Amino acid sequence: MRPRFYVPELEPAAAQVELPEDEAAHLGRVLRLGPGSPVEVIDGRGGLWLAEVVQADKRSAAVRLIERVSAAPEIGLPVMLVPSVLKGDKMDDVVRDAVMLGVTALQPIVSERSEVSLAALMKGGRAARWQRIAVASAKQCGRAVVPLIAEPITCDAYLRESAAGLRVFCVEPSAGDVAVRSVRDVPRPVGAHVVVGPEGGWSARELTTAVDIGAVPVSLGGRTLRADAAPLVALVALLTAWGEI
Amino acid sequence: MRPRFYVPELEPAAAQVELPEDEAAHLGRVLRLGPGSPVEVIDGRGGLWLAEVVQADKRSAAVRLIERVSAAPEIGLPVMLVPSVLKGDKMDDVVRDAVMLGVTALQPIVSERSEVSLAALMKGGRAARWQRIAVASAKQCGRAVVPLIAEPITCDAYLRESAAGLRVFCVEPSAGDVAVRSVRDVPRPVGAHVVVGPEGGWSARELTTAVDIGAVPVSLGGRTLRADAAPLVALVALLTAWGEI
Repeated sequence: MRPRFYVPELEPAAAQVELPEDEAAHLGRVLRLGPGSPVEVIDGRGGLWLAEVVQADKRSAAVRLIERVSAAPEIGLPVMLVPSVLKGDKMDDVVRDAVMLGVTALQPIVSERSEVSLAALMKGGRAARWQRIAVASAKQCGRAVVPLIAEPITCDAYLRESAAGLRVFCVEPSAGDVAVRSVRDVPRPVGAHVVVGPEGGWSARELTTAVDIGAVPVSLGGRTLRADAAPLVALVALLTAWGEI
Repeated sequence: MRPRFYVPELEPAAAQVELPEDEAAHLGRVLRLGPGSPVEVIDGRGGLWLAEVVQADKRSAAVRLIERVSAAPEIGLPVMLVPSVLKGDKMDDVVRDAVMLGVTALQPIVSERSEVSLAALMKGGRAARWQRIAVASAKQCGRAVVPLIAEPITCDAYLRESAAGLRVFCVEPSAGDVAVRSVRDVPRPVGAHVVVGPEGGWSARELTTAVDIGAVPVSLGGRTLRADAAPLVALVALLTAWGEI
């Protein structure tokens, strides 16, 4: 497989295309490619080109676009994953897998029972890290779209925002007294947010607020899922129910 | 949550129940429980009991069963996962997640493109390790059934065995010239094997042999999945299509 590079500012009509610094370093210093090497370039918005290297050193690289080709197909409806941030670096895998499954964006949230604080996430520059993981995952799974990873916000702030599509709230088998639907009883929407709780689940207040603003609480089967597997299970189950897998 | 212990030889009518040595060591030495401590016991075949410790030291422990209670529901059809063994310890997560999703058994196979050999797996006692992971995962997700992890065999040997239910062969988007179905076009069978390839995918010969014996090649969507995510994606997609999630 040709190595793939991400050029967010790509101008298809240009005679040659400069790579951003980190991508250039990967091309020149890590992969040691030189003039004439065949590569692929994605613009992160759906464009994929065959290209060849025209110049490369340790800090800069330029390629010449040869031909626009088809990337892996995108799913047929916009799906944003809204995961409660988990402890440690478990979110890295959540981001990687969500991109692989075709989500169009991610909005990490900090919920009442999240074991990480918004301040710590901001200080650690986590959104930038997750964005880099999203780029790597898009390259690996064949997508030419790089989903945007938003800066984390609180669950309350997220629930105050309006959403154009359906909000699916994933809940545990043991969830309180809200009426919970099966995945297969959620008709395909025009777009959806898939909202997943932290290790300790949603607080009663969060769940009530979500239902009040029209979110649909959905169960993911009878067994207790690990918190870091729940986003993947939710996405696959919903995408299957909506005919996308 | 009460700590849970696994007693495969459990005799429900007995006045008291001895724990196997490793479970006893966990109870006495790790958790430091003593007489009167409330615990739960599973027999691995669907039975879950509330119990209390009657005796415990570093090597042995006995409990008294109080009452049989309901465990997490099992899925409504037997599903065996047949994963090609992956490199390193990636199979540990595959086993853990498959048990969490409700599979009834696992048959690891070594395929033509597997990067591990049957001999190395046997020498390393990997099936016993995976069985321990299955026990831990069953306890964690609330199941009282511990799926049996069979000793690994070659893909060829597996394909020579007869299977009672449907064999679903998961294939990549780029799979050769076999007719591939979508998950949603696979009607719910009475039982199924879900067969997943290794990092490099199936060889053409394996895929042809599988189709010849009636296996159904199924696609998991248009994007290339990481090999270690494919079993989870396949199980969730099929269980959703069959009304189990």
